[in-house]
Amino acid sequence: MPAIPLGRVMSDDDNSPISAHAAKQLFAELKAAPALVLAVSGGPDSVALMWLAARWRRSLARGPELTVVTVDHGLRAEAAREAREVKRLAAELGLTHRTLRWRGAKPKTGLPAAAREARYRLLAQAARAAGASHVLTAHTRDDQAETLLMRLLRGSGIAGLSAMARHTRRDGLVLARPLLDVPKSQLIATLKRARISFADDPTNRDASFTRPRLRALLPQLAAEGGDTRTLVRLSMRLARANAAVEVLTDGAERFLRLRDRGVAPQPGVRSFEAAAFATLPEEVRLRLLLRAIDGLGHEGPAELGKVETLLAALDQAMLDQGLLGQALAARAPANGRAILKQTLAGALISLAGGRIHIAPAPARRSRIGPKGGG
Amino acid sequence: MPAIPLGRVMSDDDNSPISAHAAKQLFAELKAAPALVLAVSGGPDSVALMWLAARWRRSLARGPELTVVTVDHGLRAEAAREAREVKRLAAELGLTHRTLRWRGAKPKTGLPAAAREARYRLLAQAARAAGASHVLTAHTRDDQAETLLMRLLRGSGIAGLSAMARHTRRDGLVLARPLLDVPKSQLIATLKRARISFADDPTNRDASFTRPRLRALLPQLAAEGGDTRTLVRLSMRLARANAAVEVLTDGAERFLRLRDRGVAPQPGVRSFEAAAFATLPEEVRLRLLLRAIDGLGHEGPAELGKVETLLAALDQAMLDQGLLGQALAARAPANGRAILKQTLAGALISLAGGRIHIAPAPARRSRIGPKGGG
Repeated sequence: MPAIPLGRVMSDDDNSPISAHAAKQLFAELKAAPALVLAVSGGPDSVALMWLAARWRRSLARGPELTVVTVDHGLRAEAAREAREVKRLAAELGLTHRTLRWRGAKPKTGLPAAAREARYRLLAQAARAAGASHVLTAHTRDDQAETLLMRLLRGSGIAGLSAMARHTRRDGLVLARPLLDVPKSQLIATLKRARISFADDPTNRDASFTRPRLRALLPQLAAEGGDTRTLVRLSMRLARANAAVEVLTDGAERFLRLRDRGVAPQPGVRSFEAAAFATLPEEVRLRLLLRAIDGLGHEGPAELGKVETLLAALDQAMLDQGLLGQALAARAPANGRAILKQTLAGALISLAGGRIHIAPAPARRSRIGPKGGG
Repeated sequence: MPAIPLGRVMSDDDNSPISAHAAKQLFAELKAAPALVLAVSGGPDSVALMWLAARWRRSLARGPELTVVTVDHGLRAEAAREAREVKRLAAELGLTHRTLRWRGAKPKTGLPAAAREARYRLLAQAARAAGASHVLTAHTRDDQAETLLMRLLRGSGIAGLSAMARHTRRDGLVLARPLLDVPKSQLIATLKRARISFADDPTNRDASFTRPRLRALLPQLAAEGGDTRTLVRLSMRLARANAAVEVLTDGAERFLRLRDRGVAPQPGVRSFEAAAFATLPEEVRLRLLLRAIDGLGHEGPAELGKVETLLAALDQAMLDQGLLGQALAARAPANGRAILKQTLAGALISLAGGRIHIAPAPARRSRIGPKGGG
């Protein structure tokens, strides 16, 4: 895929309204879509998305049908009023509007993730009903920078720090983020110029939430050169490096499979020749373990730090056993007992007979189960 | 190389003095060296290094000769007094001490880099005179975290964000950083417990310098989970990913050279088959350009952002010319004129005849030189 210049962002003047011309470029690739769903909560970012999309659509002789959808999660009292406000503005702009409600029981833990999933489901339903190929969300450059900072401070790996993509495919729909290069301040300026009011969600400034606290840190980082543009450029660079490492890991999987042409595969088990595994770069060894554990374990994605600890133990065990040299078969009889055995994220990882095996861990029936490493 | 567990760091209690047992582990790999040079400025980190190394050496029946070296850069009036203070403490600890002075003219710009280079040169001379295999410096976990944060905010790429190594080989010497996993607060606690005084460099708190300002930000980041341990773990993860990408780039260079078996090499020019180049991951394309430009250009390392812009232009030109497909030879006659030509960091990059060429740029004799892209 050709490189997109990372400098392709909006004007340096972060407080200027977005011109009709600039908006035309933001939406250019959506012109041929049959219909678009706009996810509009009523906050400034999504109201600006709606206003910009409506102005763009009016400028076209032919173009996609726009449907504005507001999801009411039923979590805040003001949500219903805000949805009515979006409906009123959509009508002024000549756009169809629907409010969709998240019904049913709300989980006690993991509420934000559950709300995000429900919102996606409702938007996808609305897109199908409207014959839309795309769902547009109003993520901004500020959102990207905050996400990077949050993950960076929480100790994520390079994959977790990679930038959000402008497009994500899911279930036959495209989730499009046309404002991903745009600073929030330009959206506010756009609304002020157009004399459009918007909801001000007080949780956006509540310091008991993580994001508002991080948002308050951003000006200090910007004063040292780390403005949102710099942070987003970093996350794009990390995404680019991450994609290359994934290519290398794919190649390593093929290499290990080629080495195993004579080995009968066991269903539901991944295994690698230890001596060949040991020749790969550390990052690749780690990703091979992560992929196998996440694919075969039954306790969700493994924590990166735990897989790092596991890899260090595996490497040490292979070193102790002299498996890093060439004379593998001679030193490690194929029926040797396991010299390392550990469970992690519902997978059982063992080193035996000169091979690394990853299999689903036996179900934990009692407290006296297999010795857990996770 | 086997993975070192990233969690292998000092005690969670960051304010505890370093025990003799812990110090033994820090210096373990240096036990067999004939002699060691300790770089000691008189600040708390390096004074602690000297004190810890002296205690460790006393506990050994046989071990390396220790020589303490203080470099006086001749830049601060207090430096001579601080060097005498280090000499006095070294004598108390039974260690040989030398003060070395940076003589000669100081540059007007790039003083910190020049001072660093001079310091290294003087330390290397002292190491050779003492028959030492290693020069030990007192870099701490805090230094690593500050460096990461600084580079992160300045918009570095993944290579620039990679962690400092515990060991670097240079000119037949090893630069060793045994305290790289140790928080500075533990060094201070160690000195307090031992009732050792140390110089307090006021520039360390001067907010007109970048590092002190970033240092002041660290507690705020730590409050959000991003303590020095988390930041250093990130830089180790980035170093790991960076090493894998370098392996992939080496492989890509071999792949491109194999494709060119029939092409007569031109001395002093690198060139790639454009269609083969275009199949590589973006990060690898970028690094191939960077390597060739840095190797052949005569204006020092190219800025990452500029190489990114160049790659985007190259990719677009190849796309426009239909060079991304298979029918390369048919569409791009070998003697076709250049469809892209640009200078960057003293290298001339061009796309012509279905190939990407990188060569030294002609010297700029007048203002009307080749059209510059850098």
